[in-house]
Amino acid sequence: MAKPVVPEEARRRRRPTRQGVVLSERLIVETALRMLREHGSAGLSARRLGAALGADPSTLYRYFDGMDALAIGEELIGRALDGWAVTGQWRHDLRELGLRIHGAYLSHPQAAVLTAGRVTGRPREIAADEAVLGILRTAGFPDPEAVLIYHAFIDQSLAFAALDAGALALSEPSRTSDEGQWESTYARLPADEYPHISATRRLLAARMNHSAYPVALDMLLASAESRLQALRAG
Amino acid sequence: MAKPVVPEEARRRRRPTRQGVVLSERLIVETALRMLREHGSAGLSARRLGAALGADPSTLYRYFDGMDALAIGEELIGRALDGWAVTGQWRHDLRELGLRIHGAYLSHPQAAVLTAGRVTGRPREIAADEAVLGILRTAGFPDPEAVLIYHAFIDQSLAFAALDAGALALSEPSRTSDEGQWESTYARLPADEYPHISATRRLLAARMNHSAYPVALDMLLASAESRLQALRAG
Repeated sequence: MAKPVVPEEARRRRRPTRQGVVLSERLIVETALRMLREHGSAGLSARRLGAALGADPSTLYRYFDGMDALAIGEELIGRALDGWAVTGQWRHDLRELGLRIHGAYLSHPQAAVLTAGRVTGRPREIAADEAVLGILRTAGFPDPEAVLIYHAFIDQSLAFAALDAGALALSEPSRTSDEGQWESTYARLPADEYPHISATRRLLAARMNHSAYPVALDMLLASAESRLQALRAG
Repeated sequence: MAKPVVPEEARRRRRPTRQGVVLSERLIVETALRMLREHGSAGLSARRLGAALGADPSTLYRYFDGMDALAIGEELIGRALDGWAVTGQWRHDLRELGLRIHGAYLSHPQAAVLTAGRVTGRPREIAADEAVLGILRTAGFPDPEAVLIYHAFIDQSLAFAALDAGALALSEPSRTSDEGQWESTYARLPADEYPHISATRRLLAARMNHSAYPVALDMLLASAESRLQALRAG
């Protein structure tokens, strides 16, 4: 369920109904996401957003007031949570949620770059954090361990979102050039000087233009499971 | 040892001595890093860089030609490698290198945000990749496993660099607001609605404004060690 993301006081001053505000805000955020995707972060301004929405830019400033990245981050986390349900199998549930967060951000690379590192303190971010902590505590991790693993898990999903979105958000020539390095440069390095790259050049070319997130996520969860087993055994 | 990062032909055309070029390029990159740190990415342009260096912007365009992010990325990786030496203890060596890469990028948050996701194909990037692959293959990982773990390891260090640098690169009010969320919002959530956050609120407040990278790195290396033991046992 979407909750409003502007301060209570500002909403009361400007709009008569709660429902009206919520709808406007979703529209603003969705339009902002579209502009970011189509024109990059340099293409997003209150003026252009106002033009796209047929609204006065000063109205938008009141809504966002430097908070646009937070509203967008909250929307992306919300999309990751939509349709996700806890099954009770902690490792499966966290894997699913990690992939969903990463995927939701990668669907909007320009927005992901701007918002992945933000702490919004908003309802859907809080819901995600409560869910992850709940999964870990219910699985049997003691609180200090649950917090450490929660932190590593959530920041790993956002960190790879920021990294992989940065690559997707590049201009086409830069992205093509970067992705081509594994064939154009790495695959041709001399074996006597670079024996390890040379020996693995085909594996590298097949692998490196995909996200490493699923592998890193599985390694994090495998390590968490070992810790849990050690705690139970100890 | 610094190696030139501009195309051979361009260097030959513009400068008579190799040493002169290397020095100029280092100066350009260092000045660019300083400008990014002081003024953010919006403050870095060939015109301003030219003014700071007392050079004609068109000369700088020839040097960088859309490659500024790559030159800066190469410099940051180079700084991570400076003074790092392989001891032969693979887990120790990778931990040290991961922390160095993360630290080198975090020393220049604005530059890190621009460059962490790039593939430069340049000498020091190649040296880092050869070293990591060498450590894993020498430790006994078969090639497909070595490439998977190399990929997860290197991208995790860069991913957390991008995420954590993004937080450091924020304006002071935004950063203060984000960091304050753990005390201002999370610590005050009602226990009946958010039992897991509420139960761990002190641990969260103490933990969440630090980087999760060291924990995530240790979990990745622990998982790699388990895989190696399983391979040896199997």
